[in-house]
Amino acid sequence: MTILRSSKNPIISPRDVQPTRNDFEVVCAFNPAVTTYNGKTVILLRVAERPVNNNNELIQTVIYNPVSDSVEIKTFSKNAPGVNYSDSRMVITPEGNFLTSLSHLRLAVSEDGVKFDISQAPCLFPQTFYESYGIEDARITPIENTFYITYVAVSPAGVTTCLASTQDFVTFTRHGIITCPDNKDVVLFPEKIEGRYFMLHRPVTPLFGKYEMWLGQSPDLACWGGHRHLMGVSKNNWDSSRLGAGAPPIKTEHGWLEIYHGVDSGNRYCLGAVLMDSNDPSKILARTNDPILEPIAPYETEGFFGNVVFTCGLTQNNDVLRIYYGVADTSVAVADIPLADIFAGLK
Amino acid sequence: MTILRSSKNPIISPRDVQPTRNDFEVVCAFNPAVTTYNGKTVILLRVAERPVNNNNELIQTVIYNPVSDSVEIKTFSKNAPGVNYSDSRMVITPEGNFLTSLSHLRLAVSEDGVKFDISQAPCLFPQTFYESYGIEDARITPIENTFYITYVAVSPAGVTTCLASTQDFVTFTRHGIITCPDNKDVVLFPEKIEGRYFMLHRPVTPLFGKYEMWLGQSPDLACWGGHRHLMGVSKNNWDSSRLGAGAPPIKTEHGWLEIYHGVDSGNRYCLGAVLMDSNDPSKILARTNDPILEPIAPYETEGFFGNVVFTCGLTQNNDVLRIYYGVADTSVAVADIPLADIFAGLK
Repeated sequence: MTILRSSKNPIISPRDVQPTRNDFEVVCAFNPAVTTYNGKTVILLRVAERPVNNNNELIQTVIYNPVSDSVEIKTFSKNAPGVNYSDSRMVITPEGNFLTSLSHLRLAVSEDGVKFDISQAPCLFPQTFYESYGIEDARITPIENTFYITYVAVSPAGVTTCLASTQDFVTFTRHGIITCPDNKDVVLFPEKIEGRYFMLHRPVTPLFGKYEMWLGQSPDLACWGGHRHLMGVSKNNWDSSRLGAGAPPIKTEHGWLEIYHGVDSGNRYCLGAVLMDSNDPSKILARTNDPILEPIAPYETEGFFGNVVFTCGLTQNNDVLRIYYGVADTSVAVADIPLADIFAGLK
Repeated sequence: MTILRSSKNPIISPRDVQPTRNDFEVVCAFNPAVTTYNGKTVILLRVAERPVNNNNELIQTVIYNPVSDSVEIKTFSKNAPGVNYSDSRMVITPEGNFLTSLSHLRLAVSEDGVKFDISQAPCLFPQTFYESYGIEDARITPIENTFYITYVAVSPAGVTTCLASTQDFVTFTRHGIITCPDNKDVVLFPEKIEGRYFMLHRPVTPLFGKYEMWLGQSPDLACWGGHRHLMGVSKNNWDSSRLGAGAPPIKTEHGWLEIYHGVDSGNRYCLGAVLMDSNDPSKILARTNDPILEPIAPYETEGFFGNVVFTCGLTQNNDVLRIYYGVADTSVAVADIPLADIFAGLK
């Protein structure tokens, strides 16, 4: 596998992003949605912020309050009974589970696909009850002159996926929830197949402990049905614990190519590829046995949540895929991989 | 609250139902879907079977194999490492989680609504991979001359809800999965509202530990969207742990009336009522603070899984609701409750 990581990696870090408030710090700038618009590379960056906290005995959470339309801070003593903060992303308390940061989406634009101008203000910020714990991990799919954005909305009611759209990356329209809790890693196919829209999604079955990839279809992008289980975890391999769609699928001469993420029993996130039939994406034609990208570089192994490479988007330049990916739940990196190398690994 | 339990309760017990094989026994005959057809009360009974097992050191599970179109038995030693059978409904093993019985749906018909003729053979039996651990807890909603049936399909891929339909209870058409795992307690509204079909459903968020009621809408009953969180659990009350829709909602002069089940922290299942706005069921007008039916009778407190009353359907005779309900996950009981008494409890 030829993997050309950019020498500028990580190409975006938290220090490159201005927080929305002076008393906040950006802890993570990662997992960007990616597309091209007017000849430029456009990304929707996930920016996770938290209050600057100098008291080591306290842990804070940030919540958007849709009633007052404001961001509120909740503070817990680390020593209080029932408070567990062993996972850096979350605090478990007797009052409920909270996230340690609040995420929003930030627009960034690049001429060369590597050096990005990052907007000073959010382009999509939590706005409803369903977004009160943040909006995360967007994907962009252009369909018939409109850019459709799927993004994760987190709230006490669960982890849902919402749909938004834009034609110019200035004005955005929200279309509401398209997948019920808990369901994320939702990507739209870029064109209709046999007259229907399709998506990959990742519902959860706590009863059987599975986090696997499903396929859904729709007449209108708003209502979804025809759900089918598409791809399960492997046995004792890099994607044996859970998996989910990454970038929106791309059309190739061999079928629909999806770059997805898989997680092993040690919580290590890698990327792999799966090939689906052009006319019936419920048919899996091939799947990579080995990852196409693993966390190896220091910026991939160390960070807010280490040993993670996680993609939400890519661009294609002839026979080379430029994969944008979040590293260690902290920053953004980019790597070029020839399509031929990916196809060589598809079995 | 005036509650007239039938003196014939339980009106259906496992011993009233013939197993599908001589080497099987019916352990539960419960949670019936209910409607009226040709002047008779028609139910779809959930029948749970398992192999007759005389070896007290072994525990068996039953699985439908869609490839061979046959039912297979899997046996585990109760003493094997990692085998946990403390919940009578399920076996946790290193190979995965399995159910201790396989459920199908059985038709039963009654002239008087109390004494039922139960068919000798299943009317809906597991048929696909998604149904390989059984089909459970149906609900029937008549919409425009067709009876629509939502039923739970359980498989290693999770707990989904499927749609089927019939016009005569002889021929049934399956329409596939309408809610992704894990999502059950799905009931359809009996008519369109503002041109759209509606359903109540119960998705699950393992991240936040919630099992609560949502509202979805559809243009065609097959594809669903517009999801909204409808009703959460109460604090320290009979429905403080989880809740879900019971019978399909009925139209009253005050709004849509839903009889639902709630569970407390001790896993005790009761029934309550909620009233939704006629034109916009996302608006909750009132909710019963106290249960309308609690497990008190011996057939409700003792059984396969005790302290459970759980409804999937009812009939209405003028101002009285006749509520059919599963008791102790074992049998079927029926009780008449005047509508006025339910409305008196709605706050």
